[in-house]
Amino acid sequence: MADSKPLRTLDGDPVAVEALLRDVFGIVVDEAIRKGTNASEKVCEWKEPEELKQLLDLELQSQGESRERILERCRAVIHYSVKTGHPRFFNQLFSGLDPHALAGRIITESLNTSQYTYEIAPVFVLMEEEVLKKLRALVGWNTGDGVFCPGGSISNMYAINLARFQRYPDCKQRGLRALPPLALFTSKEVGKIFSTHSSFFSRGKMIPEDLERQISLAEAEGSVPFLVSATSGTTVLGAFDPLDAIADVCQRHGLWADSVAWNPHKLLAAGLQCSALLLRDTSNLLKRCHGSQASYLFQQDKFYNVALDTGDKVVQCGRRVDCLKLWLMWKAQGGQGLEWRIDQAFALTRYLVEEIKKREGFELVMEPEFVNVCFWFVPPSLRGKKESPDYSQRLSQVAPVLKERMVKKGTMMIGYQPHGTRANFFRMVVANPILVQADIDFLLGELERLGQDL
Amino acid sequence: MADSKPLRTLDGDPVAVEALLRDVFGIVVDEAIRKGTNASEKVCEWKEPEELKQLLDLELQSQGESRERILERCRAVIHYSVKTGHPRFFNQLFSGLDPHALAGRIITESLNTSQYTYEIAPVFVLMEEEVLKKLRALVGWNTGDGVFCPGGSISNMYAINLARFQRYPDCKQRGLRALPPLALFTSKEVGKIFSTHSSFFSRGKMIPEDLERQISLAEAEGSVPFLVSATSGTTVLGAFDPLDAIADVCQRHGLWADSVAWNPHKLLAAGLQCSALLLRDTSNLLKRCHGSQASYLFQQDKFYNVALDTGDKVVQCGRRVDCLKLWLMWKAQGGQGLEWRIDQAFALTRYLVEEIKKREGFELVMEPEFVNVCFWFVPPSLRGKKESPDYSQRLSQVAPVLKERMVKKGTMMIGYQPHGTRANFFRMVVANPILVQADIDFLLGELERLGQDL
Repeated sequence: MADSKPLRTLDGDPVAVEALLRDVFGIVVDEAIRKGTNASEKVCEWKEPEELKQLLDLELQSQGESRERILERCRAVIHYSVKTGHPRFFNQLFSGLDPHALAGRIITESLNTSQYTYEIAPVFVLMEEEVLKKLRALVGWNTGDGVFCPGGSISNMYAINLARFQRYPDCKQRGLRALPPLALFTSKEVGKIFSTHSSFFSRGKMIPEDLERQISLAEAEGSVPFLVSATSGTTVLGAFDPLDAIADVCQRHGLWADSVAWNPHKLLAAGLQCSALLLRDTSNLLKRCHGSQASYLFQQDKFYNVALDTGDKVVQCGRRVDCLKLWLMWKAQGGQGLEWRIDQAFALTRYLVEEIKKREGFELVMEPEFVNVCFWFVPPSLRGKKESPDYSQRLSQVAPVLKERMVKKGTMMIGYQPHGTRANFFRMVVANPILVQADIDFLLGELERLGQDL
Repeated sequence: MADSKPLRTLDGDPVAVEALLRDVFGIVVDEAIRKGTNASEKVCEWKEPEELKQLLDLELQSQGESRERILERCRAVIHYSVKTGHPRFFNQLFSGLDPHALAGRIITESLNTSQYTYEIAPVFVLMEEEVLKKLRALVGWNTGDGVFCPGGSISNMYAINLARFQRYPDCKQRGLRALPPLALFTSKEVGKIFSTHSSFFSRGKMIPEDLERQISLAEAEGSVPFLVSATSGTTVLGAFDPLDAIADVCQRHGLWADSVAWNPHKLLAAGLQCSALLLRDTSNLLKRCHGSQASYLFQQDKFYNVALDTGDKVVQCGRRVDCLKLWLMWKAQGGQGLEWRIDQAFALTRYLVEEIKKREGFELVMEPEFVNVCFWFVPPSLRGKKESPDYSQRLSQVAPVLKERMVKKGTMMIGYQPHGTRANFFRMVVANPILVQADIDFLLGELERLGQDL
C-alpha cells in the first residue's frame, strides 16, 4: 500500500515511542526543571537572532532525522530558551514552575482532547465546571456560569459580546449597524484593550465620580454606554480599581459589571494558558450568545444529557483543556497552600520596598498596593541631580542599558517601561513561589553592580 | 515571614519536585501512551456524569493532599479520559499521538513562556517564523506573514479583521458603524462560522458561478462584499471548494482571498492547538490592524531589533507557543515522512470505500474526495426497505443507538450526524498515522456486531 515507509517514522512501534519519550523527559528534567530553577544557572543564554538561527538550524527539510539528532535539538531548544521558572526571572506578570500544574499540563498534552463535548472530554467537562464553581465562590457568586478561554483578551472579548447580546438579543440577526453607537469604559492602565473612552485616574485607579461624568458625556454624544471593565491589578502599577463603587455606578446606569476575567496563569503560576471568564448569569447567556448549534458535534439525539456539551459557549470550535493544571495544583496545595503563597509574595514585596527605601540609588515610583514594585535605579552619576534639566532624559536611558547588561550576562531578567511622563523605571513582580529574601537582595545588588559605572 | 509553610508544598524542594514529575511521567507513559494507543485496551471507559463526579472527587478543598493521593488522581484522570490516540478513535477530525509532537508539547509546557517578545521567547520567535515560511511555501507564497492562533475560528476571525482593515484602514478610529454594511461569503459546510450569505453547493462544494450571483445580489441590497472564505476539506463531507475559480471571482470583485487558515492539529496530528494563519501580505498588515503598542512590552528603546517582537500581530497579549510541536515532528519525520502518512491515509480511505461497497448493510453517502468517508450502516431489519415511508426516520435512529453501544462497550468511537435532508450517517475520518487495514476491518465488523439485532 502506498510507497515504502520512510526510515525514521516510529508509527506503529510503541517500544521506540516510549524510549524516545523517556529520553525527552529526562532532558526536560535535567535542563528545564533542575537547571531551569537553579539560581546558580543562567536565566537566559542570550544570542543575537542571526547567530541563534545558525545554532538552531531551523530549516525544515524533506528528510527526517535520527533519534540522536532529535534529542540534541530538544536540548538546544531548552538551552537557548528563557527559564521563566528561574528564581531570577522577574520579567513578566507570570513566573515560577509549579510542579503539580506542570504535571497537569503534561497529562493534558498526552490526552490531547478538546473540551467541546462530554463524549470526548468527560473528565474535563465535569472538572471545568467544578473549578469555575470554586473560582466563582471566591468572587462571591453562589450560582452562575463560565468558561476557560485562550487568554485574558479573549475572555474580555467574550464579556463584551455577552454584555451587548444581553442588551440587544437580536444583534446577531440585525448586525451591529442596526444598533446605536455603543460605549465601553476601561482603564488606560491595561495593555491590550482597545478603548475609546477612558476614565481619569489617581495612582492608576479609576475614579468612580469621573466614570459617572464620562458616562453622561458619552450619552450626551449619542452613544449607549453598556459596559465598564474594571481591573484588579493593573499591568504596570498593580493598581486596583474600586470595584464596589464602580459596580454601584454600573447598577445606576444599567451597565454590565456581571463577569470576571481571571488569569490563574499569572500570579497563581498555573501555566500559560489558564484564563477563566466567570459569570453570575444563570440564563445560559453564553450559549445563546455564542452558539451555532453545529449538528456534527452537538447532536440532540445523543444518549447523554447534551447540556454537558460546552462547545457552544464559545465562538471557538476546538478548545484546549485548561482546567486540569489548576485543579491538580489546587488539590495538591489546597486553598491554604495557595493562600500561603500569596501571603508570602506580599511579605517579600514588603521586604523589597523596605530595602529600596534603605539603599542609596533606589527610588520607589509609588508605594505598591500589590506585588508589582515600580522603582528607579539612579546610577552614581545622576544621584542628587534631580534638578538638572536633562535628568529625566538621562534617567530614561539607564534601564535599557541595565537590561541589556543583565540579559547578556544571563543573571536575571526584569521589565522596564516609561509610564505617562515618568522616565523608564523597573517593574518588579514578586510572583515566583520559590522566591526568598536572598533573591530580592540579589536583584538589588545586581542592579548596583551592573550600573556602578553609569 | 508570614505564616508557617503548609506541609504539602514542594516550593523550594527541587529533589521532591523531580521525584514527583518522574512518577507522573511514568503514569503518563503507562496509562496514556502505552495503554492509550493499544488496540486491545478500551478507547473510553464510559461513566454517567453523576457516577464519574463521585469517582473523581472533584471538589477543591482548603487542605492539600499527599503525594500518593495526587498520583492516584493522575491515574484516575487518564483512566476515565477518552484516548484520542487510540487506533479505534475515529470521532473527530483529529486523532493519533505523534511522539515527536508530544515531545515538543512537553518541552513547551516545561518552558512555559509567551510568544510575544524575542526577549522571553528567542527560540520560538525564530522558529515560528521558519514554520510559517515553510507552510506558506506549500501554499505557494514565497513571501508573506503569519501567526499561530488559538484555533481555526480565531484564525478566521483575524482574517476577517485584516480584510476589513485593508479595505477601511481607518475603521479602528471610525468604528464599524461608520462603514457601509459588509458582506462575507462562506460555506454552509463549515461548523462554527456565523454567516449571513451562503453560496449554493454541489457535493458540498461552493459553485463559483453561484458565488458571483450572490455577490451581485449582496451589492444590489446595498452591502459591500469584502471577503470569501473557501474551505479545503469541509467538516462532514471533506469537500474542497474550487480555490482557483473562487480566487478569480475574488480578484474580479476586489474581495479578500489572501490568507489561509491551516490547522496542523487536525490531519497532521501536531496536537491541540496548532492553527496557523498565513498571509501573502508584506506590508505589516497584521501589526497595523491588531497592534496596540503597549509600552510595557514593546519598548522601542530595546537593545535588539524590535521587529522581532510578534505580540502586536494579534489582539491577544500572552500567546502560547504552538510552533515547537510541529517543528520537532517535521524535523523527525521530514516532509517525506509527513507526505507518506497522508498517502497512507488516502490508501486506507480507498480500502475502506471498497470494503463498504462489498459488504451488505453498508451504503456510502457519496464517493469521498478526502479522508472523510460518510456512510450508513443499514441494520438487517431495514435492508431492502428503502421504499418504506418510515425508512429514513427509522434509519436515523440507528446511528445514535450504535454510538451508545460502542461507547459503553469502549471498543471504538465514531461520529455521526444528519446532513441536510439525509438521515443520520457515520463520518469516518482516516487520520491516525498508526491505522492499518485491520483497524478498518474492525470498524466495519464492530458495527455489524453492534447492530445485528436492529
